[in-house]
Amino acid sequence: MEQATLNVKGMTCGHCEKAVKSALGELEGVRDVEVSLKDGKVEVKYDAEKVGLGNMKEAVEDQGYDVK
Amino acid sequence: MEQATLNVKGMTCGHCEKAVKSALGELEGVRDVEVSLKDGKVEVKYDAEKVGLGNMKEAVEDQGYDVK
Repeated sequence: MEQATLNVKGMTCGHCEKAVKSALGELEGVRDVEVSLKDGKVEVKYDAEKVGLGNMKEAVEDQGYDVK
Repeated sequence: MEQATLNVKGMTCGHCEKAVKSALGELEGVRDVEVSLKDGKVEVKYDAEKVGLGNMKEAVEDQGYDVK
């Protein structure tokens, strides 16, 4: 199990949190997602054999947020 | 047909806009809803025989926003 922190810009409310959480949660290999709105950070626990950082970044960007 | 403007606090993103728009749109008698996130204003066209301002206010508050 790997752990990564994504810096996500533009999350402003509980809906944003939900959208990001659910987009990541739908990816195979993602085990756990914690969102901190205040800090603009998303901590993900994932199986690096099944999913990569690029996939996760894309999933968040598809929801309309910038990832650094 | 009547028209009213609700002052809604706390809408921050497109999800908020959608949530408010859809909550109002589900009320019988509501014909049109326009949301301005920037101004925190929601313009509603409605049939005053079928729905009242109180119903609309409640629908928006149920989504977690304050209405003035």
